[in-house]
Amino acid sequence: MDLKAYLDERRALVEAGLKRFLPAGSTMPSELHQAMHYSLFAGGKRLRPTLTIAAAEAVGGRAADVLPVACAFECIHTYSLIHDDLPAMDDDDLRRGRPTCHTVFGQAMAILAGDALLTEAFALLANPAFVAHLDPALLRTVTYEIALAAGSQGMVGGQAVDILSEGKAIDAALLHYIHTHKTGALILCALRAGAHLGGATAAALDAITGYGTAVGLAFQIADDILDIEGEEAARGKRIGGDQSRGKATYPALVGLEEAKREAQRLAQEAFDALVSLNHHADPLREIARFIVARKA
Amino acid sequence: MDLKAYLDERRALVEAGLKRFLPAGSTMPSELHQAMHYSLFAGGKRLRPTLTIAAAEAVGGRAADVLPVACAFECIHTYSLIHDDLPAMDDDDLRRGRPTCHTVFGQAMAILAGDALLTEAFALLANPAFVAHLDPALLRTVTYEIALAAGSQGMVGGQAVDILSEGKAIDAALLHYIHTHKTGALILCALRAGAHLGGATAAALDAITGYGTAVGLAFQIADDILDIEGEEAARGKRIGGDQSRGKATYPALVGLEEAKREAQRLAQEAFDALVSLNHHADPLREIARFIVARKA
Repeated sequence: MDLKAYLDERRALVEAGLKRFLPAGSTMPSELHQAMHYSLFAGGKRLRPTLTIAAAEAVGGRAADVLPVACAFECIHTYSLIHDDLPAMDDDDLRRGRPTCHTVFGQAMAILAGDALLTEAFALLANPAFVAHLDPALLRTVTYEIALAAGSQGMVGGQAVDILSEGKAIDAALLHYIHTHKTGALILCALRAGAHLGGATAAALDAITGYGTAVGLAFQIADDILDIEGEEAARGKRIGGDQSRGKATYPALVGLEEAKREAQRLAQEAFDALVSLNHHADPLREIARFIVARKA
Repeated sequence: MDLKAYLDERRALVEAGLKRFLPAGSTMPSELHQAMHYSLFAGGKRLRPTLTIAAAEAVGGRAADVLPVACAFECIHTYSLIHDDLPAMDDDDLRRGRPTCHTVFGQAMAILAGDALLTEAFALLANPAFVAHLDPALLRTVTYEIALAAGSQGMVGGQAVDILSEGKAIDAALLHYIHTHKTGALILCALRAGAHLGGATAAALDAITGYGTAVGLAFQIADDILDIEGEEAARGKRIGGDQSRGKATYPALVGLEEAKREAQRLAQEAFDALVSLNHHADPLREIARFIVARKA
């Protein structure tokens, strides 16, 4: 299959969905909505919403049906980047090849734009104009999972431990906690939400869960490797930031070569988890390879 | 009726609910959960959750049924206080008589604690262990209203305009926008959610909406007046902060005496909006008077 064409099509769908579902940049207060749009339409990979769509399609569901939920994940992901980049957090001035949100709009507007995008995700998940076709009880289950994955025992918890661990010697268990929570939880949840709403059987949901657990960790290890080996131009953010901030990373803990082997092993594990699914799951299979082979 | 006893009982119910519904302060990562607890259990008035309960009771509903939803409002309110107090925002060091969250836990943990509390609100609204007794479709409607009231065209929008207007001459229309969005939207929504889930008829929901619109504005005008006339010890935060930051306030725009008359007029308007409701709405009637008579 042509993965690039698949990803391009899904990304276009997500971009169109975000434009349709979110308030326009001109909405009052316009400075706030412009800050939200600035970060939301900064040319990201749209990995999480693509995973939601691909998981739905893998179990026989339709992209259009899960698009609002897919877009909610992108809102949550974008809010987390805006807040992570703040001076009090990771203090990054470059993201996706452009100045970070707070650099352009100021810290107050960046904090509020992040808050608003997080809130918007849950508005989207409950908006009768966009989710009326989904079963309310199933949607409630998915919404609950999303809130858990994004919250204090998920993504925000991972970021908290990451910040608290800066400059400290940490062991493999704590690093695993950071990786699985800060990045892994939302990636896994994006996949499970798509599968759930796509009509997955319990066995298919299990398969997607196994895939998501492995691919989420593979993604973060690949990200750590790219922070060392990647090219700043392709990556659109500063290289070496982890090291200069004393961040714990997988390569720092086990060495670069072992980290690369582990990423490959996890990609294979993800691939293998889908053995019971048919060819509709091929995009997910290809995405597992792509995640550890990507350059940006 | 004995309003103090009514408020004390409802506040105790809310405190117990928050303890039951939220992750314990010892939950890993404990520093994050401690920051959340520090601000959530700082002895607030619990006005918004009390309004949710009072609105449900006013239309014949039961407090216990709407308690999780009531507590979600307190999570959203507390998150907004934590973020508003940040140095990049209102830069307050005192709140409810104690150092603000970022003063104790640092800015990074305060930003994350706010993010987590906002996320927790939506987890609570979808948690099968707490909301299974509520109709999923009605709950979705209420959740959507809450997200709108809290988001970029509600509370966050109001805070954005408030920040952007600091030190500028603003007119009555813009001040009205700030008041109705920054504070009014969530108060109105807390009331509507309680009424909705309490089983209100369309007419009763209209009555509660009229009440909430007036009482939300009355509350903010009373707050502006207390920022001038209140006592720091009773209020638990700095007095005169609005003026020193060049914040637009109703008293600054129309004078202190006219502001007091307007608050009284709105309290009466709120009272009158409930004319079609029976004695179960008496607590709401008393709360309208209390909101403009309070000293803290």
